Amino acid sequence: MYIAVVGAGDCDGKTGEIAYRVGLEIARRGHVLVCGGLGGVMDAAAKGAHEAGGVTVGILPGGREGASQWLTVALPTGMGEARNALVARAGDVLIAVGGGYGTLSEIALGIKMGKPVVGLDSWNLEKRGRGRMEAAPGPVEAVALAERLASPGTDGPP
Amino acid sequence: MYIAVVGAGDCDGKTGEIAYRVGLEIARRGHVLVCGGLGGVMDAAAKGAHEAGGVTVGILPGGREGASQWLTVALPTGMGEARNALVARAGDVLIAVGGGYGTLSEIALGIKMGKPVVGLDSWNLEKRGRGRMEAAPGPVEAVALAERLASPGTDGPP
Amino acid sequence: MYIAVVGAGDCDGKTGEIAYRVGLEIARRGHVLVCGGLGGVMDAAAKGAHEAGGVTVGILPGGREGASQWLTVALPTGMGEARNALVARAGDVLIAVGGGYGTLSEIALGIKMGKPVVGLDSWNLEKRGRGRMEAAPGPVEAVALAERLASPGTDGPP
Amino acid sequence: MYIAVVGAGDCDGKTGEIAYRVGLEIARRGHVLVCGGLGGVMDAAAKGAHEAGGVTVGILPGGREGASQWLTVALPTGMGEARNALVARAGDVLIAVGGGYGTLSEIALGIKMGKPVVGLDSWNLEKRGRGRMEAAPGPVEAVALAERLASPGTDGPP
Repeated sequence: MYIAVVGAGDCDGKTGEIAYRVGLEIARRGHVLVCGGLGGVMDAAAKGAHEAGGVTVGILPGGREGASQWLTVALPTGMGEARNALVARAGDVLIAVGGGYGTLSEIALGIKMGKPVVGLDSWNLEKRGRGRMEAAPGPVEAVALAERLASPGTDGPP
Repeated sequence: MYIAVVGAGDCDGKTGEIAYRVGLEIARRGHVLVCGGLGGVMDAAAKGAHEAGGVTVGILPGGREGASQWLTVALPTGMGEARNALVARAGDVLIAVGGGYGTLSEIALGIKMGKPVVGLDSWNLEKRGRGRMEAAPGPVEAVALAERLASPGTDGPP
Repeated sequence: MYIAVVGAGDCDGKTGEIAYRVGLEIARRGHVLVCGGLGGVMDAAAKGAHEAGGVTVGILPGGREGASQWLTVALPTGMGEARNALVARAGDVLIAVGGGYGTLSEIALGIKMGKPVVGLDSWNLEKRGRGRMEAAPGPVEAVALAERLASPGTDGPP
Repeated sequence: MYIAVVGAGDCDGKTGEIAYRVGLEIARRGHVLVCGGLGGVMDAAAKGAHEAGGVTVGILPGGREGASQWLTVALPTGMGEARNALVARAGDVLIAVGGGYGTLSEIALGIKMGKPVVGLDSWNLEKRGRGRMEAAPGPVEAVALAERLASPGTDGPP
């Protein structure tokens, strides 16, 4: 499964720790981690997944400069913020960790594309329409919830 | 000035009426209207601008089929939801009318790109960071507010 | 009809004159001119179409800085060279005037998308597969040929 | 190093064999193979690299359906032919194997982006401007040539 971790390029230590643990858990469970490839949440999650031996993919807004060093594959797009749609599309499910407006755009694009989104201390959206974003209490729970929501034939957690 | 009107492809009559009036006012004031080129809010706004003699641009997710008939220029992108970033980038300022998750993504992308966003019965976002989305009470006020927020050298409304 | 004029951002006077006349003819015949929005061939063609009262659209690789002054609609994409695919997609038919590698990419993308391409002193491609690029002897003939090739139900020139 | 292998989605057995050997050699030398992720040349090259234990990335025009089974990372873009620019951008150097118009667009985009391109029984372009596409006699030579052309501080083969 491909899990996209979305979050800000700058983050405080606590948020970075959460992102790191999300990445670790994603790789432990054998999933590919996709992110925006830069610093902050993206870098921390990639580091976690890398340390657990996982495959990490960064979809970058510009070139490879400034990319996280923990990426198995660093993809420069030269598309600026339009690359956020590629990050959202690449995940079978998204996990949002904290986040600013770029993160919000990825959450919204993911829901618009019909993908489940799990939030960890992230945006608290009003309910509108059929999309779903669900909050998780911690990194391990977030990955487990992402797996359940993304599995075909299930309806998410009971 | 280029004003992007963002909103859902399906909308009720009241929301459509608001979008129509926004489009009318944009064209009356001599601005170019940019939108996603499809139905609902996009079509209604384009109709309003067209009837006031304005230039209307639709940036479409697929081909020209399904495009609003009120577009001066219909641009097929074949890029799916990634075209939302092009809509946001094309506006010097955005006006969001109602809206679902696609609209939310355009609001978030616009703020991320540093553009002011005016909301009409739209998403009510928590304050996070420096971006600004401001609510307007009606179509005419929304366009006037958009002009003020987008004008260089001013700091928006007092 | 939408006609995309593709060509280099720098060009000599003679090529610019040809591009100008292509733009003039496109507008005289009531078509919308689409181009990459920058200098050289793009600027000259837009100027011609503008002077004949036509609608001109520039799909820019970055922001609006550096855009031709003859555009009715200037669309910044922030996508770099990936915007070449948008230029190709926006035309019902393409006219290539001279051109370097960017132009070649637009010709190839246009043919790949199934669109006819007319060349004026442009790349002379080997025949491969079913795509067609046809040379025209001058600007007026190029626009007439473009019209014929793009018209549904005809098979191009006899 | 990232090496993009570009070629048609359908190819004959001989071309497929060449692509397979190119992929094999890319992985043996420790490079990441990037391609368009579909059949034909893309699938054959990915298979070769996979069998040699390499990392393979497919940048897909639509979703993951129809993707080569030999990809370490399959990235759906939903951008259609505009994804060709992403394939070209992802490679430090491109190797074109045979090819139709999609391939030609990737060659042209690569040269436009300043990247060296190596051809194996591919398009034979007229010289225009400063870009360079050089032919190689076989798969092993193509990868060696790609390495030399892409290495900073060298000027390519003597």
